Amino acid sequence: MTKILLENIELLNTPEGAKNCIAIDDSKITYVGKKSPAGFVADEIINGRGKLATVGMVNTHGHVSMTLLRSYADDMALMDWLQNEIWPIEAKMNANDIYWGAMLGITEMLKGGTTCFADMYCFMDDVAKAVATTGIRANLCRGLLDTDSEGDIKLDENTRLVKDWHGYDNGRIRITYGPHAPYTCSIDYLKKIITAAAENDAEIQMHLCETKSEIENCIKEHGVTPICLMDSLKMFELGVIAAHCVHLTDNDMEIMAEKNVRVAHNPQSNLKLASGIAPVGKMLEHGICIGLGTDGASSNNNLDMLEECRAVAMMHKAVSFNPLAVTAATAWDLATFGGAKVLGFKNLGKLESGKDADIVLWNMDSPTWHPRHNKLSLLVYAASSRDVDMVLVAGKKVVEKGQLATFDEEKIYAEADRCAKNLLSK
Amino acid sequence: MTKILLENIELLNTPEGAKNCIAIDDSKITYVGKKSPAGFVADEIINGRGKLATVGMVNTHGHVSMTLLRSYADDMALMDWLQNEIWPIEAKMNANDIYWGAMLGITEMLKGGTTCFADMYCFMDDVAKAVATTGIRANLCRGLLDTDSEGDIKLDENTRLVKDWHGYDNGRIRITYGPHAPYTCSIDYLKKIITAAAENDAEIQMHLCETKSEIENCIKEHGVTPICLMDSLKMFELGVIAAHCVHLTDNDMEIMAEKNVRVAHNPQSNLKLASGIAPVGKMLEHGICIGLGTDGASSNNNLDMLEECRAVAMMHKAVSFNPLAVTAATAWDLATFGGAKVLGFKNLGKLESGKDADIVLWNMDSPTWHPRHNKLSLLVYAASSRDVDMVLVAGKKVVEKGQLATFDEEKIYAEADRCAKNLLSK
Repeated sequence: MTKILLENIELLNTPEGAKNCIAIDDSKITYVGKKSPAGFVADEIINGRGKLATVGMVNTHGHVSMTLLRSYADDMALMDWLQNEIWPIEAKMNANDIYWGAMLGITEMLKGGTTCFADMYCFMDDVAKAVATTGIRANLCRGLLDTDSEGDIKLDENTRLVKDWHGYDNGRIRITYGPHAPYTCSIDYLKKIITAAAENDAEIQMHLCETKSEIENCIKEHGVTPICLMDSLKMFELGVIAAHCVHLTDNDMEIMAEKNVRVAHNPQSNLKLASGIAPVGKMLEHGICIGLGTDGASSNNNLDMLEECRAVAMMHKAVSFNPLAVTAATAWDLATFGGAKVLGFKNLGKLESGKDADIVLWNMDSPTWHPRHNKLSLLVYAASSRDVDMVLVAGKKVVEKGQLATFDEEKIYAEADRCAKNLLSK
Repeated sequence: MTKILLENIELLNTPEGAKNCIAIDDSKITYVGKKSPAGFVADEIINGRGKLATVGMVNTHGHVSMTLLRSYADDMALMDWLQNEIWPIEAKMNANDIYWGAMLGITEMLKGGTTCFADMYCFMDDVAKAVATTGIRANLCRGLLDTDSEGDIKLDENTRLVKDWHGYDNGRIRITYGPHAPYTCSIDYLKKIITAAAENDAEIQMHLCETKSEIENCIKEHGVTPICLMDSLKMFELGVIAAHCVHLTDNDMEIMAEKNVRVAHNPQSNLKLASGIAPVGKMLEHGICIGLGTDGASSNNNLDMLEECRAVAMMHKAVSFNPLAVTAATAWDLATFGGAKVLGFKNLGKLESGKDADIVLWNMDSPTWHPRHNKLSLLVYAASSRDVDMVLVAGKKVVEKGQLATFDEEKIYAEADRCAKNLLSK
C-alpha cells in the first residue's frame, strides 16, 4: 500500500505555470488540488516541476503481438497483403513469438503514455503474462474464427482465459470473448460464442463494419448489415466493443446507440488499409460511446495513441468541411475517458480523486511546447509521445525517465528481433 | 573546407545491418559506398553505428514566425479565427518577435530532420538573419498584399530582400516574390509583382486554390479559376511555387503540368483548417512536381515534416480506397527530393555523390524501430522526428546529439516565450 505525492505538477485544466499536487494511495488517486493534502504521509514524493500530468491513454483495439510484423509488408492491396504475407507468417507464430511481440508492443505503448489496451489474438495466455509482467492494464480476448475445424478449441481457450485471468490484480486485466468478424464466423458459431459469453458473464470484442465489401457480402449472404445481423442474434445485450465501424447506415447507428455498442475507432489503420473514414461526427451526434485505437503494428505501423488522437481531431474536420467537427478537447476525451468506457474500466480515464491512478507525466522541454498559450492544444496538436517522462498504472511506476521500469528494454528488443528473424527463416 | 567521413552508417536502400561510408568535402557529398573512400583524408570521422543516414526533409510551405502563435487559437471557423484572433495579434508583431519566432520554428525543424524550408511573412530580413545564424537552408519571400495602402512598400521590401539575400552562403538562401493569394492581391498589383520578379530574375511563391470559397469567389469576380487567372497573367513563366492546391479542375492540372507549376502540399494544415484533401494522386498522374509542407504552427500546430510525410502516405489511400495510392517510397520522395525541386534547390534531395550534404542521422534505438524488416517503412510509418540524432546542412553540423549546435536552445525558448507573452499584453 504505497502512498505517492506528486508536487509542483501542471495540469491541463489549470493556468499555465500553476502548481498542483496529486496524492495516490495504493492504486487510487485520493486528492488533486493546489495545496498539499492535509494529513497525507507519503512514502515517496515526486517533484513534477516542468511537467504536465494527465491520465493515461486507452488503446481500444489491436493485436499487440503483430508488432513482430511491423514493416514486414506494406503498401499492398488488402487481400494480397492478408493471403500472401500476413496469414502465412502468422501461421508460423508460436507462444514464444506471441510473448515477445506483446512485450515489444506493450513497451512502446507504455513509453508513449498508453496505460491500457485491448487485444485480440492467439496464445492469449502469453499476452496476459506480458501484461502481468509489464504492469499495463488490458482487456484481452481470444480471436475466434471457425474458418477451419478448430473453432470449438479456440472457444474453449477463450473460456479458459476468462476463468484464469478475468479480474487479475484488482481488475487490471479484463477478459472478453473475441468473435473475429462477420465474415470469419458462421451464424452457428456466433450463437455458441454468445451462449458461452452469457454463461461466463463476459462481454464481447469484434471487428465490425470495417470495409465496404464486408457490408456488401453480409447483405448478400444474410440480407442485412453486420450491425443488424449481430442485433438479431442478441449479441449487443452482452455488451459489445465494435472495432472499426467505418461503414454504417443511420439505422445501424440508431441500433448502436440504443444497445450501447461501444466503438473502437482506428483512424490511421482505416486510412492505411484504405478502408475509408468512419462517420465519427454522426456517431457522436447519435450519442454513441467512442474510443480510439491503433490496430496492429502490421497495419498502422506504430502503437502511438497520441498520433491517433491527433488524427481524429484533424481528419474529421476536413471530411466534414467543419473546423469544429472534432475539437482537441473531444479528441483527448475519446483517447482517455471514452476509451476507458469502451473497454469497460468504469473507474478510469479522469484525473480526479477516487479514480484509478493511471497517470502520465509529460516533459515540456522540447520546441513544440513553446510558447504555451494552451496546454491541451499543445498536447493534442503539437506534442510527441516521446515527451513521456513517467507513467503510473494503478499507482505503480511502470515508466521512469522515459524508460520501462518493470523489465529490461534491451532484452525485449533483442528477443523480439530474434523471434522476427526466426519467423522469416521458418 | 572541412572534410567529414561518416562510417558504419546504415542507409535506406542497403540491407538491414549493412555498414556504409559517406564522405563530405566542404558542402558536398563526394562519396557513398561500402568501403572507405580511397585517398580521402578526413578532418573528422563520425561513427554512425546503429544510426540511419538519410537526406534532410524539405518543408515547402510555412510562416515560421507564426510559431509564436502556436496553440493561441484553435478549433475555430476560418474567418472567425483569422479576423478575431490571428490578424489582430499579427498586427502587433515587431521585428524582434519575428526573429525569435523564426529561431523557435527553425530549431524545431532542424531537430526534427528538416534541413530546408520555405517562408512567406513580414520583417523577412529578420527571418533571413535567423536562417543565417542557425545554418538551415531556405527559400524566403515577403508576403505581398495590397488590401491596405502599403502594397508598394511591401513590394519594395521584397525587391530589397532579393538584392540583399538571394544566393547568400553559396546559395543556402534563395529569395522569391510572395504574392499572398488571389483574394488579397488586385490584378494591377499582381502585374507589378510579376514585372518586378521578371526584372530581378526571381521566382514566385503564392497561396493558390486553398479553399472552395476562394475558387468560387475568383470565378465570380474574374470568370476563371485562380490557376487560369495566374496563367493569363503569364505568372507561371517565371517559375511558381503554389501552396495548397486543394481544389483543382482537370484543366487546372493540365496547365500546371505544362507550365511546371510546383505544388507545396500541406496535408495536415488542409485537414485542420477544414479546407479539404488535395488531389495528390491525380496531380502525380499529371506529372506535377509536388513537395510537402507544414504551413504555420498556428494552423497545424507543429513543424514536423515526418508527420506530414506519414499523413500524405496515409490519407490519400483512404480517400481513393486504394492502399497503393501514395506508397512509403513516394511519400519519402515528396518529403525530400520533390520538395527540393519545388523550392528550386537543384542539387538537393538525394544521398548521392555530388549532391549538397544536407544529411540526417536517425537513432534506431526506440521500440518503433524493432523489428527491422524494412527501414523505409519504419521511417515513414512508425518512427518519430524525435529520433533525429545529428543534422548537417551544406556539410556543417547544425544538430548534434539531438540538440541545436549553432545557438543556445534555452535562450531561444525563453526569448520566444517572452515575445509571446508580450504580444498578449500589448
